Amino acid sequence: MKITKELIQPKSIVVIGASNDIEKPGGKALYNIKNGTFDGDLYAVNPKTPSIQEVDTFKNVEELPQVDLALLAIPAKFCTSTIEILVKEKNTKAIIVLSAGFSEMGEEGKKIERKMVELVEEAGASLIGPNCTGMMNVHHQSNFTTPVPKLTDEGCIFISSSGATAVFIMEIGLKMGLDFSSIFSVGNAAHISVEDVLEYIAETYEEHKARTILLYIESINDPQVFLKSAQFLVEKGFKIVAVKSGTSDAGSRAAASHTGAMLSSDMAVGALFKKAGVIRVYGRQELVTVGSVLQHPELKGKNIAIITHAGGPAVMLTDALSEGGLAVPHLPEAKTAHLLEQLFDGSSVSNPIDFLATGTASQLEKCIRVCEEDLSMIDGMVVIFGSPGLFANDEAYEVIREQQLKCKKPIYAVMPSVINCEREMAEFVNKGGAFFDEEVNLGRAMSKVFNRPKPSISNNIEVKNTSTIQSILKDKKGLLPVRDALKVLDLAGIKRPQERLVYDESQAEEAAKEIGFPLVMKVVGPAHKSEVGGVILGVNSMQEVKGNFAKLSAIPDADGVQISEMVSGVEIFIGVKKEPGFGHLITCGLGGIFVEVMKDIQTVLAPVTKKDALQMVRSLKSYPIIKGIRGKEGVDEDVIADTICKVSDLLQAAPQIEEMDINPLMGRGDHLVAVDIVITL
Amino acid sequence: MKITKELIQPKSIVVIGASNDIEKPGGKALYNIKNGTFDGDLYAVNPKTPSIQEVDTFKNVEELPQVDLALLAIPAKFCTSTIEILVKEKNTKAIIVLSAGFSEMGEEGKKIERKMVELVEEAGASLIGPNCTGMMNVHHQSNFTTPVPKLTDEGCIFISSSGATAVFIMEIGLKMGLDFSSIFSVGNAAHISVEDVLEYIAETYEEHKARTILLYIESINDPQVFLKSAQFLVEKGFKIVAVKSGTSDAGSRAAASHTGAMLSSDMAVGALFKKAGVIRVYGRQELVTVGSVLQHPELKGKNIAIITHAGGPAVMLTDALSEGGLAVPHLPEAKTAHLLEQLFDGSSVSNPIDFLATGTASQLEKCIRVCEEDLSMIDGMVVIFGSPGLFANDEAYEVIREQQLKCKKPIYAVMPSVINCEREMAEFVNKGGAFFDEEVNLGRAMSKVFNRPKPSISNNIEVKNTSTIQSILKDKKGLLPVRDALKVLDLAGIKRPQERLVYDESQAEEAAKEIGFPLVMKVVGPAHKSEVGGVILGVNSMQEVKGNFAKLSAIPDADGVQISEMVSGVEIFIGVKKEPGFGHLITCGLGGIFVEVMKDIQTVLAPVTKKDALQMVRSLKSYPIIKGIRGKEGVDEDVIADTICKVSDLLQAAPQIEEMDINPLMGRGDHLVAVDIVITL
Repeated sequence: MKITKELIQPKSIVVIGASNDIEKPGGKALYNIKNGTFDGDLYAVNPKTPSIQEVDTFKNVEELPQVDLALLAIPAKFCTSTIEILVKEKNTKAIIVLSAGFSEMGEEGKKIERKMVELVEEAGASLIGPNCTGMMNVHHQSNFTTPVPKLTDEGCIFISSSGATAVFIMEIGLKMGLDFSSIFSVGNAAHISVEDVLEYIAETYEEHKARTILLYIESINDPQVFLKSAQFLVEKGFKIVAVKSGTSDAGSRAAASHTGAMLSSDMAVGALFKKAGVIRVYGRQELVTVGSVLQHPELKGKNIAIITHAGGPAVMLTDALSEGGLAVPHLPEAKTAHLLEQLFDGSSVSNPIDFLATGTASQLEKCIRVCEEDLSMIDGMVVIFGSPGLFANDEAYEVIREQQLKCKKPIYAVMPSVINCEREMAEFVNKGGAFFDEEVNLGRAMSKVFNRPKPSISNNIEVKNTSTIQSILKDKKGLLPVRDALKVLDLAGIKRPQERLVYDESQAEEAAKEIGFPLVMKVVGPAHKSEVGGVILGVNSMQEVKGNFAKLSAIPDADGVQISEMVSGVEIFIGVKKEPGFGHLITCGLGGIFVEVMKDIQTVLAPVTKKDALQMVRSLKSYPIIKGIRGKEGVDEDVIADTICKVSDLLQAAPQIEEMDINPLMGRGDHLVAVDIVITL
Repeated sequence: MKITKELIQPKSIVVIGASNDIEKPGGKALYNIKNGTFDGDLYAVNPKTPSIQEVDTFKNVEELPQVDLALLAIPAKFCTSTIEILVKEKNTKAIIVLSAGFSEMGEEGKKIERKMVELVEEAGASLIGPNCTGMMNVHHQSNFTTPVPKLTDEGCIFISSSGATAVFIMEIGLKMGLDFSSIFSVGNAAHISVEDVLEYIAETYEEHKARTILLYIESINDPQVFLKSAQFLVEKGFKIVAVKSGTSDAGSRAAASHTGAMLSSDMAVGALFKKAGVIRVYGRQELVTVGSVLQHPELKGKNIAIITHAGGPAVMLTDALSEGGLAVPHLPEAKTAHLLEQLFDGSSVSNPIDFLATGTASQLEKCIRVCEEDLSMIDGMVVIFGSPGLFANDEAYEVIREQQLKCKKPIYAVMPSVINCEREMAEFVNKGGAFFDEEVNLGRAMSKVFNRPKPSISNNIEVKNTSTIQSILKDKKGLLPVRDALKVLDLAGIKRPQERLVYDESQAEEAAKEIGFPLVMKVVGPAHKSEVGGVILGVNSMQEVKGNFAKLSAIPDADGVQISEMVSGVEIFIGVKKEPGFGHLITCGLGGIFVEVMKDIQTVLAPVTKKDALQMVRSLKSYPIIKGIRGKEGVDEDVIADTICKVSDLLQAAPQIEEMDINPLMGRGDHLVAVDIVITL
């Protein structure tokens, strides 16, 4: 674990490059720490100003007492020497470099970064940054931006590759009432990257009350650490939602120009998130909206009751929920009749429950209680309550907050009146509530949460034949010769079409008997088999076998005849690509036009469990064809999944495989064979 | 045109059911009119209160002078008699019924509505509502909700099926600086519906300075009026963006429970919008975001420059724009080198142009000027400028506003700091600016606008053979007999497989010669042809023709033999479904699994132009198969498009067709024939 306890809960903090000017990072950071929750020793260093913000101020670093955490807001070129003194003489175990001017500026800056990292690693310290805005948690707010929210133990943990982006994400989050427990801006991530913070949370998970983690990621340096930590956390009940920006080519270039982030294929990121159980989102608003949904009690099923005094948003929300696989079921009259009696004439309780523009706060309370207590088929509620401006909404919003705290079922509050109810909404947030101002965004976020991937944990296993496979691949590079590829296929346990090499008629007859009709017969020896009439398809009888054997043997240069199974049926494609850092991506789909034209493929990150493999197959749009459709026989999905698993095992035995295509895996029913294979090392 | 000039610009207004209590609709409506821009005569009617809000108050309607526009805020049961007096005795030509309690409550209310409509129609007056919040434009603000924005001639025109929803849409719009010129809430749309307002704008388009129209629609009563008006307006340079809620089944039910809206198939709505050139969106936020994009100067091409001081949002925006078909192209160094010199070290001008967190307002101005003047490949700019909270953004936002007014290219302003820059953003709006607070939402909206459908105007034409076709269909109901369907197909000019009925060997030979091999031969007469061996496929020689003729003729009950072309190749599906009000929907796709499994279809509203038909074919995911792929011959897209047009013509000649399937239309190259056809009347 790279993160030290001194970073999380320091007993003493120094701001180096501190200032009285709070429009400067060194001034604002000191201001934020001093006026925040930190209650240890606070120092400032500035060679020119003797007293800064009424804090103990030192002329230089040498004069400092021992200090746990140091914030650096000084030019890049002074950072290395400062850090050296801190870690070697002041026992400093945590450093946050706010300054810019490092790897994002080029080679020179990269060198300084490397030197800083060496120093902190030697000393067993942590380094956040450089080129970051700092970090904050309930113990200290060591960052130079605003807003500095009231941090709570149960609030979201938020880790960001970019400081300014972190601020913009916090701003929309805070507006809607989202709470935070800690915020890390890792900047250039010279030492501590997003996944390192994730690893720290995983290793200390019992100390955290927070259960929601938000990530804004520009680059994943170590996908394996990310995967392991995220999987572990999700298994322990954490929920992780992440933006990985730079999905497009131009986007990636922008990322690279920003924090020197490396390009990583978007497909690999998608597969990584899925395997890790991370919910993927694509923008700031979606991130905080999903985050806020996650901060509600868990939705146990898909049935939502919508309670509203305005029909329009309820209809749009119903559309969005249905689109996302959630339901707004009709409510049984027997269970709602007593509610209807208590509402004004013209109200509807069929779901959406519409208690009209004139509906009162106490009617709203009744609607919520009925959904909580009497309607067991309902798993959660959305209350949509705004104001056309006739009167204030304080009472209704109090009811919502009270019921949110009382009810076991989650209550999501949509408050659309961003002008008419601005004051009441701010008050709702002050009381600890969180609202959504747009119902379609909420509906989509609820669907994302409901349909979130489960982490798929697959332990590396002992793969049979590993040493034999390795001996075949040893010293090979590039395209593996067909003969070797076939051997590897056999060792991996992946079936191929049956074939026999025969040299006389009786061998030919015996081979045909063993393999069964129809057969393909090919001459062995001549280079251009087809041109000399050396390939015969659809051989269907023993008599044809004999005749063809004679014919093929008579071809000049004939060395023998190959007799093989003639395969037909459904074509499956299985492909492999190694993505640096991520490992192997395995892709499958129906072969031919389905992959090429319809782009109907599924992708996972190896290693693959049988469950993953089956889910891949079942997620294909063309899955009905695999099952068999319109009287056409399909293929056994189990056999496809097993083949994918065998490919996955092979990759574990032979991680040097760069690319691999089984195209097609072909057959009917449970008889599927790899007709063609290409392996690249 | 149903809308009278008295509704738009009344000389006198009365609020019936007025009140001193501005928490009541009758009180607030009067308040809004009185305190708004209306400068004509204003009256109030209330039997109990002698003086209301210092306006001329009358005890009852009889005592009123002549009045152009009346707002009714009285119980439903009194509305009819009141309207009768107004239209018959007071020459009132415009009525807005704010009250609820009509068709949304059931049969009784529906009756009152019908009576009210009769009265206003007899008098040539307009009725808005009932169950609405009113309307407002630059002349008068006759509605009972807040906020009442400052209405401007160039602002959006906004028409809504729902009053509360209209308020919630306005609220988010106004927050981001969206301007409005007029707002109509049509409520139950007893007389005037959304499409009637659209028709009014079309017929008076020269009087409007506004060019953006926003629609929130729960039901379209007259799709044809909608289509005609929207097409006309879009042709005249208006841009229309619309939410049609109730897309899901449960959603539709919610709509029906709300304003008694009728169910209309979502597919038909999509086809209608596309044909009309209307941009379809799915929520309040998307509606105003697209609306605000439309209020900017038109983007002439797809190349966007992103100017920012924070990398993260720029990367996410680039991702969103690329995903939507827009581009963030690399900028040539030769054209940007002089800009780079004027920015701080570490800035990037490759696009996104990142001038760093420390970048100044004057640097921002330089970036914008270079994009406007020196970079001809750039069509528009997005400036992303927030604040991490160190200093205020007034200067930068002034630069953005000035440049928005100066530049010919559109400048979209993203202001992400909803907390840190709340004041500066409100000021920006006060100065007439409009901002976006989330870059991904903006990027998607820009893409929607850029990819918006062009209206497809097709005039009804004289269809050949109309009377003959009608004589065949006359008095028929349900499934049309095959014999008639084939006749109709021939009259529509849609090719079928060639076939001949032959009775002797020489006729058979002649038919085979004419049609060409391969052939299908079928016995005529016996009911279950296949069971008696009466169908022979793949007949390939004259000798086989003769042998098979003898064999088929010998089958008991044989009446003759049908010889027909054996069709093979690509299978196309063309389907037709009549949607009440919308007319005929025509669907096409590749036949078989592509339609059934991959759901790869395109749908348009008849009548169809050749251009529409070609675009349908080209929009199919499976289009590469139609073009021919992997050495397999395709089919001529022109012939498919022609066949779709012939189907469209047929529907015009025979509008009583309810459903029709050509499945498959089959063949190779330009030889495509309708192998099977089903027509339902």
